[in-house]
Amino acid sequence: MAVPRQAQRLAAQLRRLPRTNVTGRPNTASRNLCTQSSSSSGSSRASSSIPYWCAAAALGIAAPVAFEMYSNGPAKLDAASLADLDAQRKREGSIGKDSPMRLRMEKFIKEQQDIIVQELERVDGKLFRRDEWSRKDGGGGITCVLQEGNVFEKAGVNISVVYGTLPKPAIEKMRVNHKNLAANADSLDFFAAGLSMVLHPHNPMAPTVHLNYRYFETANPDGTSQAWWFGGGSDLTPSYLFDEDAIHFHRTIKEACDAHDKDYYPRFKKWCDEYFYNKHRGEARGIGGIFFDDLDESERDQENTFAFIQDCLKSFLPGYIPILEKRKDMPFNAEEKEWQQLRRGKYVEFNLVHDRGTAFGLNTPGSRVESILVSLPLTASWKYMHEPEPRSREQRLVEVLRDPKEWV
Amino acid sequence: MAVPRQAQRLAAQLRRLPRTNVTGRPNTASRNLCTQSSSSSGSSRASSSIPYWCAAAALGIAAPVAFEMYSNGPAKLDAASLADLDAQRKREGSIGKDSPMRLRMEKFIKEQQDIIVQELERVDGKLFRRDEWSRKDGGGGITCVLQEGNVFEKAGVNISVVYGTLPKPAIEKMRVNHKNLAANADSLDFFAAGLSMVLHPHNPMAPTVHLNYRYFETANPDGTSQAWWFGGGSDLTPSYLFDEDAIHFHRTIKEACDAHDKDYYPRFKKWCDEYFYNKHRGEARGIGGIFFDDLDESERDQENTFAFIQDCLKSFLPGYIPILEKRKDMPFNAEEKEWQQLRRGKYVEFNLVHDRGTAFGLNTPGSRVESILVSLPLTASWKYMHEPEPRSREQRLVEVLRDPKEWV
Repeated sequence: MAVPRQAQRLAAQLRRLPRTNVTGRPNTASRNLCTQSSSSSGSSRASSSIPYWCAAAALGIAAPVAFEMYSNGPAKLDAASLADLDAQRKREGSIGKDSPMRLRMEKFIKEQQDIIVQELERVDGKLFRRDEWSRKDGGGGITCVLQEGNVFEKAGVNISVVYGTLPKPAIEKMRVNHKNLAANADSLDFFAAGLSMVLHPHNPMAPTVHLNYRYFETANPDGTSQAWWFGGGSDLTPSYLFDEDAIHFHRTIKEACDAHDKDYYPRFKKWCDEYFYNKHRGEARGIGGIFFDDLDESERDQENTFAFIQDCLKSFLPGYIPILEKRKDMPFNAEEKEWQQLRRGKYVEFNLVHDRGTAFGLNTPGSRVESILVSLPLTASWKYMHEPEPRSREQRLVEVLRDPKEWV
Repeated sequence: MAVPRQAQRLAAQLRRLPRTNVTGRPNTASRNLCTQSSSSSGSSRASSSIPYWCAAAALGIAAPVAFEMYSNGPAKLDAASLADLDAQRKREGSIGKDSPMRLRMEKFIKEQQDIIVQELERVDGKLFRRDEWSRKDGGGGITCVLQEGNVFEKAGVNISVVYGTLPKPAIEKMRVNHKNLAANADSLDFFAAGLSMVLHPHNPMAPTVHLNYRYFETANPDGTSQAWWFGGGSDLTPSYLFDEDAIHFHRTIKEACDAHDKDYYPRFKKWCDEYFYNKHRGEARGIGGIFFDDLDESERDQENTFAFIQDCLKSFLPGYIPILEKRKDMPFNAEEKEWQQLRRGKYVEFNLVHDRGTAFGLNTPGSRVESILVSLPLTASWKYMHEPEPRSREQRLVEVLRDPKEWV
């Protein structure tokens, strides 16, 4: 890590600053974190060992969750040091290649949020609402929402940057995937930053898309970096399936993956199919993409993993916008709109029933619920015993959701 | 219990019949039953010690859940005896005061389902669709649904009657509230029967209503009754609050309660406010009613408890229909319809995020998902950061949901 000596000096200074809202009580939120069932479907990695904060981050809710953990957490002399150190660094100069990964990731997702929002505004013709929010003790987020636009029924592009403290049981859970996590620490400062996005277009021929990329790091007591990992992915949920769209979406992602590791795309495509699965319906949420977590130094070094994440995120606009442009003005009838609404209902079911991040966020007191639930569509529908006509386009979609395809 | 000797003889006969689908494997569904988190809000009883099958039954899903438990359950010589005994009894003659409570409750809820469906058809002018379903090894249900009617957007009136086998860990859980449950049994035959109903009218001035009453019993190996209890309740969810409606609904329920025990209404009203609580929103789902579970012989004898349950269920139509008649044709504008849709979204949130029965049912392989999710509205909506106007009728509703009132 860069500047460990400066970090130690700053940490020592900052420890002398007054802090608020620190108690010696055990932390309810933290205890929930560690006892929550992980019975949802997914690959063996996905289902049993993703740290819960990661799932939370997958929907842009790491911030409120982690803040809750932090603000109610056990007393710790230097709990604020990482946040304060980074704030100090930002005041001192610009972020470059030698800066800590925390600051580089934060800078990167902020830039990407701006680029994506700008491009979506160009396509839609209406502007996003931008809510910047912060919580005491460091960190916060920017929630950008375009609702009832020309193209989008609802579009949310969110970032969150969080400094918090992990309690011992959460550390133990995380150590399953990260053997180098501090073995005897009672608590551990951490940093989490991520960009997440869900776009629901009006036109039933234009697919819903979800994306999330995130970085996680724990800190030594002196403020230097301890363990780190990246996670994320992106997946497409059409109401009407155009094979050429599925192929384009997957091919764009595969190219980003292949430039870094030929194994990434097949591994992470499978993980995605398994995670975004509405098991009570026996069908996938959509036609997939990639999903992964816990990419750390056991896979490859931090610099190359960051480069991979950057390429994945940068591949989003070329992967999705051409599909959107092709579909957003296609003609459709009332029955097709209704089918889209029924598919939206199943999207709601996945997010509220199976997505561990959403469930955990909603069950955590004090989380920013409106940022979590911006992933839900503007409207959705449920009909008893609705079945698509045999050999219809609707039926074809359901068949593919029941038996995910290889697209590239 | 009536006819224990006959029961023993029949059981002995029936044990010699061939059975299918019985394995010695431990049961996945059953293990889920016992490890599921009970972190939802509610009174201390509601949140920590309701047997999960009861919560499942609360939405009419005991049948699929319990059947799953049964059909994959551990091998047990006389596992089918209770179902087969009861089938034999039904063939032999009519159900009367001396019949086992299982058969009396089944008869009662079937009669009530017919009465309620007939009355709702009268009000709506359209007919319910009626799906009778059964599973091998005994039991089944009748799901009655009226969708896109004249008055109702969606109305489901369901019964289920289930014979199954509880595995040891589920027995241990239940013993928290039922000290007399067989202490050393490795598994226990059980019976569950219930009626559940959710009605969503079109008109935003007409409230959604939910009701469920259920009976549970465990059996000794000889087919005689071991432990038993009743549970249930009914609650109202308006989009626009008319105090006179809330007062009428609560008063009708209170009268049914008071005829049996003056403590019932205040106890069960509080339990309802605590259970049907969208804790991530900090507001109740609706304006309440009553909710209770585990009413057994420690409260009062079976005959009187059954009489109480009967009076509660019979009080439903006089409690709800006058409200519906008054509101179903009231004028409303587009904004009021939209507010109803946003409130419907929060109904979906409660049912999919917090209701333990729904979550458990959906996470149980093989459950009848369409019967579980008939509780969801036909349509719902979510808007980012939507807030009602200060001092509006919408705002008044939210205030009452945040701070439940005493209505009678």
